[in-house]
Amino acid sequence: MLKSAVISVGKEIVSGITQDTNSYFISSCLSRIGIYNRFVLSCDDKAQDIIDTVKFCLNKVDIVITTGGLGPTFDDITIESVATALGKGLYLDSEALKFIHDFYTKLYQEGKIETGGINEKRMKMAYLIEGCKPLKNSIGAAWGVYVKQDKKHLFCLPGIPKEMKPMFEKEVLPVLRKLSNSTMIVKNYDVPINDESVLGEAIDKVMKKYPVYIKSLPIGFESSIMSVRFTAYAQTEDEAKKRIEEAKKELVNLLNNL
Amino acid sequence: MLKSAVISVGKEIVSGITQDTNSYFISSCLSRIGIYNRFVLSCDDKAQDIIDTVKFCLNKVDIVITTGGLGPTFDDITIESVATALGKGLYLDSEALKFIHDFYTKLYQEGKIETGGINEKRMKMAYLIEGCKPLKNSIGAAWGVYVKQDKKHLFCLPGIPKEMKPMFEKEVLPVLRKLSNSTMIVKNYDVPINDESVLGEAIDKVMKKYPVYIKSLPIGFESSIMSVRFTAYAQTEDEAKKRIEEAKKELVNLLNNL
Repeated sequence: MLKSAVISVGKEIVSGITQDTNSYFISSCLSRIGIYNRFVLSCDDKAQDIIDTVKFCLNKVDIVITTGGLGPTFDDITIESVATALGKGLYLDSEALKFIHDFYTKLYQEGKIETGGINEKRMKMAYLIEGCKPLKNSIGAAWGVYVKQDKKHLFCLPGIPKEMKPMFEKEVLPVLRKLSNSTMIVKNYDVPINDESVLGEAIDKVMKKYPVYIKSLPIGFESSIMSVRFTAYAQTEDEAKKRIEEAKKELVNLLNNL
Repeated sequence: MLKSAVISVGKEIVSGITQDTNSYFISSCLSRIGIYNRFVLSCDDKAQDIIDTVKFCLNKVDIVITTGGLGPTFDDITIESVATALGKGLYLDSEALKFIHDFYTKLYQEGKIETGGINEKRMKMAYLIEGCKPLKNSIGAAWGVYVKQDKKHLFCLPGIPKEMKPMFEKEVLPVLRKLSNSTMIVKNYDVPINDESVLGEAIDKVMKKYPVYIKSLPIGFESSIMSVRFTAYAQTEDEAKKRIEEAKKELVNLLNNL
């Protein structure tokens, strides 16, 4: 099964000013298409921190997806930092440059900003990673990138959720769906027990027998029931569902015989 | 300034089933008391992943706070993994064991669970890290730990927010407040410009002159204004506020002269 990591870059995330919803969204999408997301990381907009975080992930997973730090301001340094982590350089993408030029010129013509065309800050967004596939932005000016290197797949996406989501869905998901050869099913069931320390033994037994991950979700001792989450990865949805059904039946049996 | 990292342990986080609110809460508390939170990381409940994540952080920051993985089930392995990362062993804490015994016995006496006292799963929670200060849990059965080693401060807290928050506030914040010798102030101001690529140049100039971090928060080109966030760390609140005031005045000046 393919493994992945999601990295959110930005001081606003690590300093607790903004709740990171991007990695939650991306992680759940990855799980649904059967990719095992192993890490979620956030770091400050510091070159060395981004480089170290990307390297940490490249060492451990097949797919790394970053969000944030693609814009025109001084602290938008994800692209150059990721390039450094990969040992690659940047190039000026003429298509991206034209897109940025036209993007700002249109806003200028609509009377929304003071100057159109290109300036130094805007031009910065046209520098992409050597050998990448540029990922078009349907909302904002900053394009993302997809880099394939040594069987690793690295995607850099914008941080603004309304720009990130369509880019992820249009440009990243189709690539990952082709790469992934498994699917994940999650099902929650209530069981008539409230004590995780007793239920745990039954879960251990079932998990040793079936290729299913089972997690109890305690509500508290005021309730007489508890929710139990079954997660199964398999090549087909039917196979994953079948595994969960079998494991659930076994767990219910064990609990009835307590 | 002290640096920190927050680690959330749990498959439910990395697989995108549960939104991680713990690290957002802790990061913002750390920032408010002037600690520079540099990383937020989440990993699966796998020993090697927890060990690697903790080591990554210990290499880079002074304070590491983990949440999750302290309970009675098979996948609650944070304490033993952190101990391994630190090169330490575990010991059976007799006070924690008595607390756990009494905790379950009380629930049993109240008719809320089927058996009181200790079983193997419950006993697991009484194994703490050698040389730690145990952190009491005012809600649930699992205690946390505080380990000080080589000038590094490591805290392990429960993952359930209603258990984590009181433990953080009662047991962790007072320690960190004593360690930290700075404070952080954040102020947002609206500026009459909507183009980050132009505002960026003015921000660069101000940031070179004042020890203040300034971040533009674009709303979109439909709006004629943009919010700008000023963040300053200083030894006193007054000093931090003064720095922001000066930087704001300079930015407004520059924008008026565009």
